Amino acid sequence: MSMSDNRYPFRMTRRVQFSETDVAGIVHFSNFFRYFEDAEHALWRDAALQIHAETSPVGWPRVAASCQYHRPLRFEQEFDVAVQISEMTTRTIAYAGEITRNGERIATASWKIACVRLDAGNMKSTDIPQDVAERLKPYRR
Amino acid sequence: MSMSDNRYPFRMTRRVQFSETDVAGIVHFSNFFRYFEDAEHALWRDAALQIHAETSPVGWPRVAASCQYHRPLRFEQEFDVAVQISEMTTRTIAYAGEITRNGERIATASWKIACVRLDAGNMKSTDIPQDVAERLKPYRR
Amino acid sequence: MSMSDNRYPFRMTRRVQFSETDVAGIVHFSNFFRYFEDAEHALWRDAALQIHAETSPVGWPRVAASCQYHRPLRFEQEFDVAVQISEMTTRTIAYAGEITRNGERIATASWKIACVRLDAGNMKSTDIPQDVAERLKPYRR
Amino acid sequence: MSMSDNRYPFRMTRRVQFSETDVAGIVHFSNFFRYFEDAEHALWRDAALQIHAETSPVGWPRVAASCQYHRPLRFEQEFDVAVQISEMTTRTIAYAGEITRNGERIATASWKIACVRLDAGNMKSTDIPQDVAERLKPYRR
Repeated sequence: MSMSDNRYPFRMTRRVQFSETDVAGIVHFSNFFRYFEDAEHALWRDAALQIHAETSPVGWPRVAASCQYHRPLRFEQEFDVAVQISEMTTRTIAYAGEITRNGERIATASWKIACVRLDAGNMKSTDIPQDVAERLKPYRR
Repeated sequence: MSMSDNRYPFRMTRRVQFSETDVAGIVHFSNFFRYFEDAEHALWRDAALQIHAETSPVGWPRVAASCQYHRPLRFEQEFDVAVQISEMTTRTIAYAGEITRNGERIATASWKIACVRLDAGNMKSTDIPQDVAERLKPYRR
Repeated sequence: MSMSDNRYPFRMTRRVQFSETDVAGIVHFSNFFRYFEDAEHALWRDAALQIHAETSPVGWPRVAASCQYHRPLRFEQEFDVAVQISEMTTRTIAYAGEITRNGERIATASWKIACVRLDAGNMKSTDIPQDVAERLKPYRR
Repeated sequence: MSMSDNRYPFRMTRRVQFSETDVAGIVHFSNFFRYFEDAEHALWRDAALQIHAETSPVGWPRVAASCQYHRPLRFEQEFDVAVQISEMTTRTIAYAGEITRNGERIATASWKIACVRLDAGNMKSTDIPQDVAERLKPYRR
């Protein structure tokens, strides 16, 4: 049994919902990306930030996402999602995350978002606002 | 066996995808609403219309949706989605739809959308544009 | 403003997740059915029941579902989902539900599930087990 | 503009559906994994195989999945999904895929599935059946 790394600065607990399962009897692999994203957004709220404020001049599209699946999750099981910021550059934020259940590793993931300015419908890379970078600092490992 | 009504003015064929199934081994009931919506939007394209054009001053939120489930659908099965406009008022459009497989009725649905003007983030009921009403007329039964 | 009916025997609170929104800026209408289903399953857990136990001889497919949409929900908004059993026959359970936010009615729904026995891949209507009927009684209105 | 690699042995064309978009106005990143999976399953059908046959003694869970996002997709846009088998071992199959639109690269992905035997609810790694390996050979690059 691989034990979870408990150095993560942010954690939340969830339960598998029926619509998240598939005919193989387990959570569909694509939904793990939603679990990690939901935890990332909860981390932003924990930092008193909103990742998608309607009046914000910047947006945060994904540039990459990957997940490794170690064990399946099933309907109604409770699990923990842990997230940390693994790297922050002037224009991108990289995360690492882990899903565990009773201390057992279920899935590990990493993903990266970029700060963009919306310019006539196009996304242009831009610097992360200073206050956002400041507020996210405590979540870096 | 209840046979399908083939008087519908618009039809499309689809196949069940893996992520649309659930642990009970069948398509999750919420996805039938997506099947019907996808067919509705295909009907609009067939009428040379776009239900969500970026420059459009109006939007089309759902005001009601209902579905009756007669038989399940399973992974990789092909099925037909038929749609008609059952009623059009000055401000709303009501649809009726049917999903069938090999002539057997799988699900029947009805739903209604309203024409709204987006006003500082709020939705206000407004008249259906004349050209939209004209182009949708052939799909009324 | 239409105030919520607080006679519901079961309630839960949720928050809108990013993946539940659509390009119109609001929660996609199909996801309301998932919100109501998640609350229904939480009601079953509250009654010390599992709606989809792996060893259970019976299943509970939907036979009908409908929803009326009064106001939109947006990303990160918190809302309440209330559910009650509106009717129970020997073989079916009908529910009514309501989604509210700050006391304002967002959506109302009704749906029905049937008790079926799985027989060589086919679903056959069967009587609701006695213990299930007993445990669900407190949620009837 | 990065041009697409047209050496892929399998391709399909799709259109973005409304429920696949999010409040940022683009396809939610998690849905790209569903696009690639749908194409993978279409590849299996093209090879006269079923990845999830009800009577099959083996299953094919994901062990890893990753995607890089180069450009966004928007509602109603048509796009191409190309898939190839990049590596096949005795027990795993690795895929590479690419989504393009008008020859422009939208997303690139890689993922791996494992052949497992279902043993009292547990998944145990097992050898890929000979006929499956044979039929998938033409899709290797």
